[in-house]
Amino acid sequence: MQNFVFNIPTRVHFGKGEVRALEEELEGRTKKVLIVTGQGSVKKYGIFDNVVETLKKAGISYVELSGIKPNPRLKSVYKGIEICRKESVDFILAVGGGSVIDTSKAIAAGTRYEGDVWDFFVKNIPCAAALPLGSVLTLAATGSEMNSYAVITKEDEERKLAFGSPFVKPVFSILDPEYTYTVNKYHTAAGVADIMAHVFEEYFSQPSSAYVQDRMAEALLRVCIRYGPRACEKPRDYEARANIMWASSLALNGLLGEGKSGDWACHSIEHEISAIYDISHGVGLAIIVPNWMKHVLSSETLEKFVEYGINTWGIEKKKKDIDIANASIEKTREFFNSLGLPSKLSKVNVAADRFKDMARAAIKTHPQVGSFKKLSEKDIIQILTESF
Amino acid sequence: MQNFVFNIPTRVHFGKGEVRALEEELEGRTKKVLIVTGQGSVKKYGIFDNVVETLKKAGISYVELSGIKPNPRLKSVYKGIEICRKESVDFILAVGGGSVIDTSKAIAAGTRYEGDVWDFFVKNIPCAAALPLGSVLTLAATGSEMNSYAVITKEDEERKLAFGSPFVKPVFSILDPEYTYTVNKYHTAAGVADIMAHVFEEYFSQPSSAYVQDRMAEALLRVCIRYGPRACEKPRDYEARANIMWASSLALNGLLGEGKSGDWACHSIEHEISAIYDISHGVGLAIIVPNWMKHVLSSETLEKFVEYGINTWGIEKKKKDIDIANASIEKTREFFNSLGLPSKLSKVNVAADRFKDMARAAIKTHPQVGSFKKLSEKDIIQILTESF
Repeated sequence: MQNFVFNIPTRVHFGKGEVRALEEELEGRTKKVLIVTGQGSVKKYGIFDNVVETLKKAGISYVELSGIKPNPRLKSVYKGIEICRKESVDFILAVGGGSVIDTSKAIAAGTRYEGDVWDFFVKNIPCAAALPLGSVLTLAATGSEMNSYAVITKEDEERKLAFGSPFVKPVFSILDPEYTYTVNKYHTAAGVADIMAHVFEEYFSQPSSAYVQDRMAEALLRVCIRYGPRACEKPRDYEARANIMWASSLALNGLLGEGKSGDWACHSIEHEISAIYDISHGVGLAIIVPNWMKHVLSSETLEKFVEYGINTWGIEKKKKDIDIANASIEKTREFFNSLGLPSKLSKVNVAADRFKDMARAAIKTHPQVGSFKKLSEKDIIQILTESF
Repeated sequence: MQNFVFNIPTRVHFGKGEVRALEEELEGRTKKVLIVTGQGSVKKYGIFDNVVETLKKAGISYVELSGIKPNPRLKSVYKGIEICRKESVDFILAVGGGSVIDTSKAIAAGTRYEGDVWDFFVKNIPCAAALPLGSVLTLAATGSEMNSYAVITKEDEERKLAFGSPFVKPVFSILDPEYTYTVNKYHTAAGVADIMAHVFEEYFSQPSSAYVQDRMAEALLRVCIRYGPRACEKPRDYEARANIMWASSLALNGLLGEGKSGDWACHSIEHEISAIYDISHGVGLAIIVPNWMKHVLSSETLEKFVEYGINTWGIEKKKKDIDIANASIEKTREFFNSLGLPSKLSKVNVAADRFKDMARAAIKTHPQVGSFKKLSEKDIIQILTESF
């Protein structure tokens, strides 16, 4: 196991009706909040009203930034920073999914920074301060509610980049599984694929002796396999929604990833696709992941796939190693298909003529793409082609 | 899943040489530290010197409270409180195992309380403030390094009681697996039994739909089963020590227990034994747990034992449920025996004539003993007798 620092300061209030915790979290801490929301569903389904009512009870005023899109845009971040400065906002409350939380994080960091917030993404300038923020989560997927990362797209440059800082970890996050009841089947499935992809990125590594982390990773994969289909079929099944929601936060809060090297090649590739084509991140991952698995399976990586197949999918130990490995990849592919997710990039209107650009951009952005297996530009093009 | 609050403010610095993190953690935060230690091993093996050297570098002075015993005594807590007040100590640093950390927590709370610190244990008075504390862990067992609980014994009354408060959660804990290299086989084994017992207390519950928590619980049990024997046989095996150490913290920091009802009957019973006989907590648990399992196995609890047997011990699904359940209990018993732990109370000089007193005290101390199966005084006497 490698050395690591484990630090999750975020207080999670988990369960039905926990929006009430907003009052104790915000009272005395803030005078004016910026509420950041997405494309209207939190208003349609009454979640926004619940939040506003609680703020009023606590005597806290608020301003609003709404309309944040999936693959959130830098221009929304600039808008949020402007509002925070003009209105002397001292706390940001994200009410939505990962895009809303990521936007809020970038606004929080940008408001306290004299330069251009995009510096944090492209110049590796460390963030030295940020407005405090909290979240009310409405989509189980990105894990942003309990970590220090934000991913933002600069549309005109077709760049989708991540930044991270301990200063933007939410002070609190409210996770009410009932708030995800209205997420439709497609986005529920994409969320499950995103959660599983996070686990894969941390799980698939060269032998690391991080046995604690890897057994926990398999535990969360089994949660997704059991409850993913159920949440898709029965959107108001509390048990399914609750387990998926809690798994989403634990999948990317350090528990599985600290103490070992992650791979992150699939994310690097998917970010290049959705930077150009604006497809849903989870959908992109569901398409790429099984083809990436197939591509990196070799004598050096075989053992890990065998471990994965037996512990996650319950494939019989007696089979030949290579058969277990191949079966585990097929199970993964079939699982995503069974959730109704597309299995080809061509089905989500991605054209093949930009694969070279994507591969080049991925290589340019990251010092190395993949650590379980290091990928070359050619590898990436091949994975994209196999995913087409 | 039940509603819960998940909150782990403790920063964990994990890995070889991480004692160096003391400097950044303490610099500017404190002028005078109380270092609490156990019965000399941290001095014998150089850990104390490492700590003191780091404090000196940071220009921090310290006073000392040494000699804390296993099943730590209230009188040591009083002594620590006196030192903190007299010496204007503003931070407590526990360097040792669970007993040292628990003592430090009680000192931290007691120093800031006008009344008798024992009030927190017997009168259920909530703790309203405490000195901040941190820990340098030298024994993987109790999980105290990452939670809010302390267990203290009042010898003259033969009472061993727990208290908990968010104010006594360590600000940081330093977990260097190499610091556990010198723990002998017997105490390593007792530590592993303690970790597993924590997991069992949280895992064995009436159907809870806390699937995330239960799969993670099985993951940590498998860590103990794989690495417990190896840590006992090869005390300087970093991989084994690291996985056991990290499992010990995760086993009792809220991850497995929040969102469901725990049982805690075995701890209630064991506390009554070690309140009188001063046996090692983990040893007492290793003796009690398999007999408790046998005692509570019934048609109502069968399903959970089947889950346990298949997922933790890999017992074949094809067998009859009752056979899986019984086999899982035998595997548990055999595992503790294989670590060299005694399997009978009579072997650790506990006399049978106090069983009735112990059972009565357990019932008196707790509103209910056990929730997986509620135990009566008679049940407890029977479990103790079967453990004799």
